[in-house]
Amino acid sequence: MGRAVVLLSGGLDSSTCLALARARGLECHTVAFDYGQRHRAELLAAERVAAALGASSHRIIQLGLGSIGGSALTDSAIAVPEHGGDGIPVTYVPARNTVFLALALGLAEVLDAAEIHIGVNAVDYSGYPDCRPEFIDAFQRLAEVATKAGVEGHGPQVVAPLLMLGKADIIRAGAAAGLDYRLTVSCYQASELGEACGRCDSCRLRREGFAAAGVADPTRYRGA
Amino acid sequence: MGRAVVLLSGGLDSSTCLALARARGLECHTVAFDYGQRHRAELLAAERVAAALGASSHRIIQLGLGSIGGSALTDSAIAVPEHGGDGIPVTYVPARNTVFLALALGLAEVLDAAEIHIGVNAVDYSGYPDCRPEFIDAFQRLAEVATKAGVEGHGPQVVAPLLMLGKADIIRAGAAAGLDYRLTVSCYQASELGEACGRCDSCRLRREGFAAAGVADPTRYRGA
Repeated sequence: MGRAVVLLSGGLDSSTCLALARARGLECHTVAFDYGQRHRAELLAAERVAAALGASSHRIIQLGLGSIGGSALTDSAIAVPEHGGDGIPVTYVPARNTVFLALALGLAEVLDAAEIHIGVNAVDYSGYPDCRPEFIDAFQRLAEVATKAGVEGHGPQVVAPLLMLGKADIIRAGAAAGLDYRLTVSCYQASELGEACGRCDSCRLRREGFAAAGVADPTRYRGA
Repeated sequence: MGRAVVLLSGGLDSSTCLALARARGLECHTVAFDYGQRHRAELLAAERVAAALGASSHRIIQLGLGSIGGSALTDSAIAVPEHGGDGIPVTYVPARNTVFLALALGLAEVLDAAEIHIGVNAVDYSGYPDCRPEFIDAFQRLAEVATKAGVEGHGPQVVAPLLMLGKADIIRAGAAAGLDYRLTVSCYQASELGEACGRCDSCRLRREGFAAAGVADPTRYRGA
């Protein structure tokens, strides 16, 4: 059975990614990051999802992205948007996926894992430079020279199964793999209990995805 | 005047890197990482060196590398070696430079910095995969696709001025640029006061470097 490190935020995409890896029979070691995000709900969601899907281990790595700033997700002085817009959104965290993959690479080396799974998606996050195929390819090349395993010719493969899928396809795939989306939290400003605001860009994409997939939306909305 | 992010551990190499950048007239923003290393002496050294060399800002980013393990520098169950050896040393921290450069990339994006400086050295650290020219080149290519600035064609240049220098050449260059090496700490097991053990691999390389450079060794050794 292959071993994989799976980046798991507790959101819809990364939870689907874990469900697909588990459906393939992989031994999965999940990683979440405590990076100064505004709420703890997604860290709690990641723990629930890792347990529900049978991850072999789950880690929360402390990461002081707040010292860098520059994003609505880590800097309370920048407002979370409640409408889509052009260009790179203020919810983009500079170099976030580079940092997350770098830490996953270190863990993959320690665990001797053959794969690193990341739930990036180029369709809904076209404004994020580090959610594009070019980025994944460049990180793959880096992984091949950055570690002992890579130098020896068996560096981990970076797997991004959702890269070219729309939200509805992602939801259908995850539901078919047995993921209960009620466990996941996507909202940029969820309550501590994991209730979604229903208004931010992330809530909007998620709600539209369930509708398009023809899957009942299990999201717990505040005041609903 | 150009703006640079400079990775600064407080050790000999990264401090020299900062001295050379300042000698070029660059506006330097330094970054140290609190990553669960065994002692605080190098973080204190980084603060001293940043102040002495006129860095425009200095940050300490929290980073839970201890959750990953696998290195004598972050795992107290693995002994620090006191003799050189073949292959990758136990003091290698998996994917450390990938993680450090990723965070520097995020900061460079926020500060709109044109360069990222890292004091890696392929001569003394030939056993570390992420201290080789191939690694720096691969990270440069990643930087060009991973960030907004990169996508727009003005991503930061990764500068590794010490890459092919021997320790004696590094020391001569830093001394010529006005660096007081007494401020720096290289020892893997320094005391809280910054006194070196004089026995670990890092102390040995440093001591030999001063001797070969013909520069008086200002290192404070324990019990000396």
